[in-house]
Amino acid sequence: MRPSGRALDQLRDVKITRNFTKHAEGSVLVEVGDTKVICNASVENKVPPFLRGQGQGWVTAEYGMLPRSTGSRMIREAAKGKQGGRTVEISRLIGRSLRAAVDLEALGENSITIDCDVIQADGGTRCASITGACVALADAINSMIEAGTLKASPLKYMIAAVSVGVYEGQAILDLDYPEDSNAETDLNVIMADNGGFVEIQGTAEGEPFQPEELTAMLDLAKKGLAEITEIQKQSLAN
Amino acid sequence: MRPSGRALDQLRDVKITRNFTKHAEGSVLVEVGDTKVICNASVENKVPPFLRGQGQGWVTAEYGMLPRSTGSRMIREAAKGKQGGRTVEISRLIGRSLRAAVDLEALGENSITIDCDVIQADGGTRCASITGACVALADAINSMIEAGTLKASPLKYMIAAVSVGVYEGQAILDLDYPEDSNAETDLNVIMADNGGFVEIQGTAEGEPFQPEELTAMLDLAKKGLAEITEIQKQSLAN
Amino acid sequence: MRPSGRALDQLRDVKITRNFTKHAEGSVLVEVGDTKVICNASVENKVPPFLRGQGQGWVTAEYGMLPRSTGSRMIREAAKGKQGGRTVEISRLIGRSLRAAVDLEALGENSITIDCDVIQADGGTRCASITGACVALADAINSMIEAGTLKASPLKYMIAAVSVGVYEGQAILDLDYPEDSNAETDLNVIMADNGGFVEIQGTAEGEPFQPEELTAMLDLAKKGLAEITEIQKQSLAN
Amino acid sequence: MRPSGRALDQLRDVKITRNFTKHAEGSVLVEVGDTKVICNASVENKVPPFLRGQGQGWVTAEYGMLPRSTGSRMIREAAKGKQGGRTVEISRLIGRSLRAAVDLEALGENSITIDCDVIQADGGTRCASITGACVALADAINSMIEAGTLKASPLKYMIAAVSVGVYEGQAILDLDYPEDSNAETDLNVIMADNGGFVEIQGTAEGEPFQPEELTAMLDLAKKGLAEITEIQKQSLAN
Amino acid sequence: MRPSGRALDQLRDVKITRNFTKHAEGSVLVEVGDTKVICNASVENKVPPFLRGQGQGWVTAEYGMLPRSTGSRMIREAAKGKQGGRTVEISRLIGRSLRAAVDLEALGENSITIDCDVIQADGGTRCASITGACVALADAINSMIEAGTLKASPLKYMIAAVSVGVYEGQAILDLDYPEDSNAETDLNVIMADNGGFVEIQGTAEGEPFQPEELTAMLDLAKKGLAEITEIQKQSLAN
Amino acid sequence: MRPSGRALDQLRDVKITRNFTKHAEGSVLVEVGDTKVICNASVENKVPPFLRGQGQGWVTAEYGMLPRSTGSRMIREAAKGKQGGRTVEISRLIGRSLRAAVDLEALGENSITIDCDVIQADGGTRCASITGACVALADAINSMIEAGTLKASPLKYMIAAVSVGVYEGQAILDLDYPEDSNAETDLNVIMADNGGFVEIQGTAEGEPFQPEELTAMLDLAKKGLAEITEIQKQSLAN
Repeated sequence: MRPSGRALDQLRDVKITRNFTKHAEGSVLVEVGDTKVICNASVENKVPPFLRGQGQGWVTAEYGMLPRSTGSRMIREAAKGKQGGRTVEISRLIGRSLRAAVDLEALGENSITIDCDVIQADGGTRCASITGACVALADAINSMIEAGTLKASPLKYMIAAVSVGVYEGQAILDLDYPEDSNAETDLNVIMADNGGFVEIQGTAEGEPFQPEELTAMLDLAKKGLAEITEIQKQSLAN
Repeated sequence: MRPSGRALDQLRDVKITRNFTKHAEGSVLVEVGDTKVICNASVENKVPPFLRGQGQGWVTAEYGMLPRSTGSRMIREAAKGKQGGRTVEISRLIGRSLRAAVDLEALGENSITIDCDVIQADGGTRCASITGACVALADAINSMIEAGTLKASPLKYMIAAVSVGVYEGQAILDLDYPEDSNAETDLNVIMADNGGFVEIQGTAEGEPFQPEELTAMLDLAKKGLAEITEIQKQSLAN
Repeated sequence: MRPSGRALDQLRDVKITRNFTKHAEGSVLVEVGDTKVICNASVENKVPPFLRGQGQGWVTAEYGMLPRSTGSRMIREAAKGKQGGRTVEISRLIGRSLRAAVDLEALGENSITIDCDVIQADGGTRCASITGACVALADAINSMIEAGTLKASPLKYMIAAVSVGVYEGQAILDLDYPEDSNAETDLNVIMADNGGFVEIQGTAEGEPFQPEELTAMLDLAKKGLAEITEIQKQSLAN
Repeated sequence: MRPSGRALDQLRDVKITRNFTKHAEGSVLVEVGDTKVICNASVENKVPPFLRGQGQGWVTAEYGMLPRSTGSRMIREAAKGKQGGRTVEISRLIGRSLRAAVDLEALGENSITIDCDVIQADGGTRCASITGACVALADAINSMIEAGTLKASPLKYMIAAVSVGVYEGQAILDLDYPEDSNAETDLNVIMADNGGFVEIQGTAEGEPFQPEELTAMLDLAKKGLAEITEIQKQSLAN
Repeated sequence: MRPSGRALDQLRDVKITRNFTKHAEGSVLVEVGDTKVICNASVENKVPPFLRGQGQGWVTAEYGMLPRSTGSRMIREAAKGKQGGRTVEISRLIGRSLRAAVDLEALGENSITIDCDVIQADGGTRCASITGACVALADAINSMIEAGTLKASPLKYMIAAVSVGVYEGQAILDLDYPEDSNAETDLNVIMADNGGFVEIQGTAEGEPFQPEELTAMLDLAKKGLAEITEIQKQSLAN
Repeated sequence: MRPSGRALDQLRDVKITRNFTKHAEGSVLVEVGDTKVICNASVENKVPPFLRGQGQGWVTAEYGMLPRSTGSRMIREAAKGKQGGRTVEISRLIGRSLRAAVDLEALGENSITIDCDVIQADGGTRCASITGACVALADAINSMIEAGTLKASPLKYMIAAVSVGVYEGQAILDLDYPEDSNAETDLNVIMADNGGFVEIQGTAEGEPFQPEELTAMLDLAKKGLAEITEIQKQSLAN
């Protein structure tokens, strides 16, 4: 019934490759089906001006898409001289979500920036970015511990993200691009591995959605995120 | 217990003044406590390039804050040459929410742009903007009917927005600035008057929030939005 | 004979509302007929880089128009990423005029920025802005005296502005939009309450104007500005 | 008594070199003392979008300064990505003044853009620009007549500009940079050769200036502009 | 003797992976040692405005680096709102080189844009980009032939690029980052497979270089480019 | 045979006017045939942030064209808010070439910026800029020695630039615009007066060029640059 042929509660294959590039303190290629995102975490021993001298650190993120990561070529934002609204919105979402996972005071006056660059898009790029970014963040923090910059990890939770939606009246898990384009409702759910919500963002694409649809979608998200978090943890255990 | 002294489920005073300025097809001053936003709806007999020739209309929104609408002066975005990420994010939210209220095909090849300019901020400016914008939108549509541009109203629902949050462990309704600054969770809920959700956006400011907190917040939002929708309708009835 | 039906030397109604918004140190809504401008004065305990360490203060202004303050919607300058030439020119005029009213050394190393935001335009917005801004400036200075930042007021003069023009061969006072659009000459006059000129800017819209027309216009401006200054002073006396 | 040693009513040497560069339809190097400006007029057989199909032409101007035209190097505006407020203001003044000299309907659907680039600055660059630009404009119009694009000249007047000021209590003509930096009042006067004013812009740099000072300055401007206009005409006669 | 331990005339390992991403008409991952670049070629059935109606096509390129493709994180150009000079210069070089390989008239009114995005940098990114881009271009052209848009290939040559330099007085081939940082001279050579030069760009980093050094470097480049071209052709043959 | 009627190895007339404007520490008008460029060198007693405290100086350049320096008017880059790719590329080339001529450590913590502004273009503007800039640089350095800022000159070489090309199968020296527009190959050669190359940039405009063509062009360049260097030295000797 789904265009993808998957069961209503079935994730796409999720694959996490650590140490994908050699320079970043944490570097992850995350693949969720055909969606592929490079997540590079960079550590800097300084904080933004508004935090100077406050004894705490900062975690932020930037999101981008290669111009031909999509079906038709998009204008390169650097050439255009301006990031689009969607890009800005997603960058803020990723950064906010990751900050919820970290004890910023325990991080000390250090910054971690996670760059999420989509090299191939097939729906769910913001959720894949968060899932991959959290692993890159964990690696970057580990590198700080190894380097003696930190004594203990300030990472409070693993977080992961998945999209759920209502498609032809049914709640479905982890929408790919053809499903996302036709969904009536789209809900991005970011959860911590303690079972709490870090962020939820739901949008009625067609008609307003009802509370029971919200409940059904949140249940699917919970199931999917448990699986994704497991994959994150196995990846970090290797 | 709340800094504002209000009951947990008590809205601030909501006041809607129509025909606030003289040029716009719909012009509303919305006041939610000390938060004040001018919402001007402008009708244009054309659509953006990506919609040309498709027999449908467009509704969009732009949000801005006067530089001294806040406690300390912010840099004027026009002078800086760039809208901040928060501004872009809120503009997109307002536009998306209003489009959910309108049958774009029934609107014909016309555009309605709603400018929401905050002249005084005290928390909840994005929600107040949506609440006021929907009334301005209704007035703009009525002006199109009076002008003979439209025969029937393409407005499917009245929509309204309110923020709810968790403050010192309790769910509270309609956070003002001091409450918002200290809330553990912040959830913006936009509902249609048929009881469906148009958009929900929840963020854990501190610890991840639990499903039962989400339920409590959504219940408060539902109560508050029923009251706000009633105020919108009375305003339009005058 | 004037489109407005006013006598040649008759001002529109001028109304000044102080404390219009709650955050700014000086906040004025100035109404000149249907032209309405919010003038917010913000005090900061610092000066721009080029003045640091020179023992003097700074007064500057920024002007803007809400996108639908006018008959048809203008593109939002913040969204466009650039202030138009007219905006820049008027901002500079307001700032320069206000600086002429203030003893910058007596202001100490403090800055006052006056934001003039037009919420409804019907001609004469730059003059209304200056008239309102001077009252907001006076209030901001008074707040500094009350706060103990200043011992005495550095305000040397009250200044006010009005436009005069030549319309169908006659000099007229305080042009509204329909008059301004058809005037042969447009002259903005900013005077101090000692009877001196702070700034005059005259433009031949059609044919060059003759010295006797200039004299007639300046006489009208002098009369009008005496009335406006009186309204400013009464407003501040309340 | 003047820093320059000139009489109160004495202009600097004014020199106009036509055909200064080879590509432009009108190309003038204007020298007013040590102030040197290249004024190039470019003809294009089209009009800006807002004038299309209205059977009239357009005249506009752009002003710029070479980075080291001044005593210390200024940042190159093209590199900065933004024209300064002063640049925008002067560009608008030059364009507005030149349009007053031309019958835009008689120009047909053609545009003339005059670029005024200051290669050496010593005060009075905006006035020198206007004086030189009008000669370049005349040459460009003549080239259109020679090319058969126009049958008769749409140039209604020659216009010229000069600054006057009050320096140590005395009205003086044609201020150079040291005089301008210390003047109490600065007034730019643009006149047509029929004796009418095209634009006047006066600013009190120190104290407000009195009507009798205005009169004295305008008298000096009238004398100086008669001399400058004569130089323009002799230049065009060669 | 080289930091890399390679012989003076030894290339790094060059690896070309075609069909690296799924959307682009040509998609190549090129690896030259630790330098890795994604080259995506996008076909569009239109030409830039300056070529419309001239019966020819266009080939252009854009270059970018992921923020953490380098040893320390660079600011994201899209966020900065401006491409750096180096980025612009390299984009132009790649586009110019590729256009030399294509018969633009035979391409018809179609455009091919090649995006070269560096995911890991270790010296020679511009040369690797050209080498990879030419393979992606060949694939894109083949897709046009398969789609029936073109009947024959407009690709006149395969082109490839390599850097050569003078390091401690010796000419060396294919500099990696540590070598490049310490080279006395850096020369980028782009050749066609007919043995002609498409572009040469040589820069004295320290002292001016002598004609005999140029000759030695060009000889090395010729040898290296023969090997690289062979790898390109084998890749396309698979 | 050449459109210009010159011999294959014949330069255009080269004229160097020193002290062209009065403010800059070095100011040169360089004329190469009809190509005319103002080169102003500005000395500042500081270095860019990335060099602070390293005991060395900096030399950089900026290139620009007056909008009507060319046959048809180009958009003013300052008004457009962005420098074109060609402008950026040429600015970088000039700066890099001049740095090769200077011992930056001997310059001390001082910066010299050379602004090259083309007032009339007829081909070869980048080469003329470098030739003129080096003379302006020498003058600026001499002014620093006279002022006592430097004890000895850090100028290691005089550098000069010329373009050579292949036109109708023949190597030619110093291409003017009509020749450049039709050349098959264009090579810019920058040499020091010790006979070494500072920079070479060659581009195949049509077919790839062969090694023997490169040799022929380099021979012509060597001859032309010897003549240009002589003119530079005579100019500085006056």
